[in-house]
Amino acid sequence: MTQPEPHRIPVSLAPPYEVVIGPGVARELPAWLLAARPGHEYALITDTHVERLHAPAVRALLAAEGIEVRTIVVPAGEAHKTRATKELIEDALAAGRFGRDGALLALGGGVVGDLAGFAAATWHRGIPFVAIPTTLLAMVDASVGGKTGVDLPAGKNLVGAFHQPRAVFADIGFLATLSDREMRSGLAEVAKCGVIRDAKLLARLDHDAARVIAREPSVLADLVADAVAVKAEVVQADERESDRRQILNFGHTIGHALESASGYALAHGEAVSIGMVAEARCAARQGVLAAPEDRVIEGVLARLGLPVRVPALLGLTPAAILEAARADKKARAGRLRCAMPSAIGTMARGETGYGLPLDEAVAAAVLAEMLEA
Amino acid sequence: MTQPEPHRIPVSLAPPYEVVIGPGVARELPAWLLAARPGHEYALITDTHVERLHAPAVRALLAAEGIEVRTIVVPAGEAHKTRATKELIEDALAAGRFGRDGALLALGGGVVGDLAGFAAATWHRGIPFVAIPTTLLAMVDASVGGKTGVDLPAGKNLVGAFHQPRAVFADIGFLATLSDREMRSGLAEVAKCGVIRDAKLLARLDHDAARVIAREPSVLADLVADAVAVKAEVVQADERESDRRQILNFGHTIGHALESASGYALAHGEAVSIGMVAEARCAARQGVLAAPEDRVIEGVLARLGLPVRVPALLGLTPAAILEAARADKKARAGRLRCAMPSAIGTMARGETGYGLPLDEAVAAAVLAEMLEA
Repeated sequence: MTQPEPHRIPVSLAPPYEVVIGPGVARELPAWLLAARPGHEYALITDTHVERLHAPAVRALLAAEGIEVRTIVVPAGEAHKTRATKELIEDALAAGRFGRDGALLALGGGVVGDLAGFAAATWHRGIPFVAIPTTLLAMVDASVGGKTGVDLPAGKNLVGAFHQPRAVFADIGFLATLSDREMRSGLAEVAKCGVIRDAKLLARLDHDAARVIAREPSVLADLVADAVAVKAEVVQADERESDRRQILNFGHTIGHALESASGYALAHGEAVSIGMVAEARCAARQGVLAAPEDRVIEGVLARLGLPVRVPALLGLTPAAILEAARADKKARAGRLRCAMPSAIGTMARGETGYGLPLDEAVAAAVLAEMLEA
Repeated sequence: MTQPEPHRIPVSLAPPYEVVIGPGVARELPAWLLAARPGHEYALITDTHVERLHAPAVRALLAAEGIEVRTIVVPAGEAHKTRATKELIEDALAAGRFGRDGALLALGGGVVGDLAGFAAATWHRGIPFVAIPTTLLAMVDASVGGKTGVDLPAGKNLVGAFHQPRAVFADIGFLATLSDREMRSGLAEVAKCGVIRDAKLLARLDHDAARVIAREPSVLADLVADAVAVKAEVVQADERESDRRQILNFGHTIGHALESASGYALAHGEAVSIGMVAEARCAARQGVLAAPEDRVIEGVLARLGLPVRVPALLGLTPAAILEAARADKKARAGRLRCAMPSAIGTMARGETGYGLPLDEAVAAAVLAEMLEA
């Protein structure tokens, strides 16, 4: 079976890099390493889960081209995105006398990417890394933009660095092993990219929902490519999130609050889905978004199987959710702000940037409507 | 008594910043903070030693202008330049809900600067910091160039980041509390700046040795300013140490090896002093440096009270020192390189940069001569 040509999305940062997307693109990794030589030695960072599923195949591809790697396996799961796990990586690098001319290969989901990227950002004050995301969420979100970091008990991503990968290989083949819930979590971020910048992407996501849920590789590759193109365009314009990059936070002010207030019972994408519905509805009530468009967004998310209501079993009140939002790092000087669309595909810009004031009375009313009975 | 105008050395990086040098310049800090507003809240990072000596005065200066700071005190000493101490800082910031719009004030020697700078580099993926160095070594070396980091058991500075301060206030008044040994350690780095880039600075250091040792504030301020100017010029040309910045490593290939092989019985500046003598002598034997100039360098260091021989009581052999040098991160592909002067004030550049191959037979012979009986 011939495969379609991979998508190649350029990310114009310093240094520039490329996101290669398609079924089987992991096969390009060895040749790229031999040509680009980001390091003179390599360590493959992965987790216990991905070590079992995909690491042997990747190591075999590398070994076939004579590229040796040492593998460092970290415990799987969000709970391990910690300083202690980063130290585990560093201790393994130190034990292997890993030099400043080495490079890391991050094979896994968002947690592995954030950990390995942060370890690369600080090992010998910064060495290159290559991202090989294995989840949809990591392909569209974590692997572009260079946000790396770890969580503290007091909050997510409190310690980290901006560190761009030298290349990203998003092999759609890896998505076959995802759970349905992980798939949906990634689709929420794809939908977000549509809302903030690409109305056609959102329409296609809606139109192809059945094929997306059936995980047709070429459909997924096209969606990932379009979402990555949106992310790349935004990040290029504002690497350090001083202004334009704030639009990527659409759905995340309330989404993060739901995620933390639920004690992480909600997956990231699930929380962002509910957050997007809530924030779009607030935007409509505040006169920022034309009225029916919030319903369109909600419809697409629902057809993808994503939650669009606050589940009753979480026992959350609007007041508790807004309190959690205020506690989040994005609430500056105690005032809630969020990125709001003015239409599907276009974000509104206020006088001080893309973070618009959220009317808390409106938000409380919207969240009250959205609570499941 | 009127004080001379402070020296103001610009460092042209992105963003640019200024190093303010002179007796009493800490008094400029509050007004600068109010004008530049690097943060909306501040944390003063210091160690147990400096907390007792200088932190109350700095807090009083800030309080007089209505600037509140929380103070985070870390244990004093090189042994505490660790990931655990960085976590202590982070935990204190988290407990105080310190935001991404805060900034750190680093008050102390090189260890505090490296720790606080690294904590600033990664808190919320990077917040500003202001350096207020209290030792001569930190004023001339650690506070310019943005190298931050911590040590691992396997090696020094294995984990860190490049993160430039927003401003540096080098108050010569703080130097009054240094031990003679700490002063000498800093003078070794001043001498290094003379050798690599400013022959007049080395000559003045020699001529004024007695006034330097007597710690005359205006003499010290002039020397610090000249050394900082050298450091700034080099760092501007090569922020990430890919080429020109390697000249700052003069004396450090053998110096670091002595430091680690001695189990840190030698202070950094002492080790660098011996390292400079050894590397200059190797440069002379290898035909890079005109023959008598290595003796000139040695003479200046000796007159400043710095060691110019390998102390017998360390029990080190040339082979052990060179083995430690090879183990150091600067030995790429196992081959020893070091930056060598071609004349006092000028560093030699080889085909691949400023790291010249060190002839190990020559180095072994030189070190054998330098062993105290």
